[in-house]
Amino acid sequence: MDITDINKFLQLSIGRWRSQRSGHNLAFSHFEEVRSTIDIVELKADEPAVIEICHLYGFDPGSALHPFRMSWEGESDWDEEETLEGNCVLVPIPNQNNPNQGKLLREKGYAETIAAIGEYRITEDGTFILLTEYDRAAAEERIWFATPNLRFRVSLIKTSDGNGVLTASFSSEIRSLSTQ
Amino acid sequence: MDITDINKFLQLSIGRWRSQRSGHNLAFSHFEEVRSTIDIVELKADEPAVIEICHLYGFDPGSALHPFRMSWEGESDWDEEETLEGNCVLVPIPNQNNPNQGKLLREKGYAETIAAIGEYRITEDGTFILLTEYDRAAAEERIWFATPNLRFRVSLIKTSDGNGVLTASFSSEIRSLSTQ
Repeated sequence: MDITDINKFLQLSIGRWRSQRSGHNLAFSHFEEVRSTIDIVELKADEPAVIEICHLYGFDPGSALHPFRMSWEGESDWDEEETLEGNCVLVPIPNQNNPNQGKLLREKGYAETIAAIGEYRITEDGTFILLTEYDRAAAEERIWFATPNLRFRVSLIKTSDGNGVLTASFSSEIRSLSTQ
Repeated sequence: MDITDINKFLQLSIGRWRSQRSGHNLAFSHFEEVRSTIDIVELKADEPAVIEICHLYGFDPGSALHPFRMSWEGESDWDEEETLEGNCVLVPIPNQNNPNQGKLLREKGYAETIAAIGEYRITEDGTFILLTEYDRAAAEERIWFATPNLRFRVSLIKTSDGNGVLTASFSSEIRSLSTQ
């Protein structure tokens, strides 16, 4: 299933997902296992949170495409006592000449708890690729749909020069079809 | 790092790799962790094993591109007593008009212990995609290089109609630079 259109990709992403994530620490060959629930909720372009993050980066909120809020709650086998949870607002700003490439504004990043701006593109085989540079690290995410109800995500945390990969993780995300 | 040429992709694959693999059983949310060593050794087109598999499928061994033998030896956390090991010969047969697409002949598959023929292509962003159909299942593999010494592999086992995904696995493969 090749989703090569950013509108379809973002629309299909809306919903509740049951996620199974494996983290690989490459230097130490360690594994981490995380089970979580991810909620992706569409936001309107005129919501205060969307307007605020657009203004932070100097973009017109009117150019936002399908902004959304992502929240997650999960448990890691590294620390079963602790619940991993958080949420952030994400705002895609497509390029004017090609909406399948653009910027993704983020209230907070995964790797660091600061606002971040990433560059996205969708490849011809339907992989959404997001590159985000932080002060001391860079993140690369690849997300693709196998079916409308199953998507995969590979996330890399790299050194800031982009040459070394510190950790890699793989998520299988299954749409939760229950109405709860 | 985008390897979009099949020759470069196959040449870079030669060597010994230390692999960390996470398997996700999607129906039961089970995780499996496997650590293994993978050796990929180039073969000559006139080696008996290469000629034999070409003849099995009716191809001219002269059209083979960088045939290789892959062998692996590892341990799973599901059964630490048992060593996972095996090896097989793989023979890429590129299309005449576009070598970045073609067939991959395989002495034995991963999913089933029978010979198999798959269809490969390399995408513009350097992902090698291999689709193999078996009698009762289909396999999809995606392999890409992050650096010359680090590659990732996502393998899916699907139902034979291609619509359902039974298991997904993710491997981080680091080139072993020791001379042992």
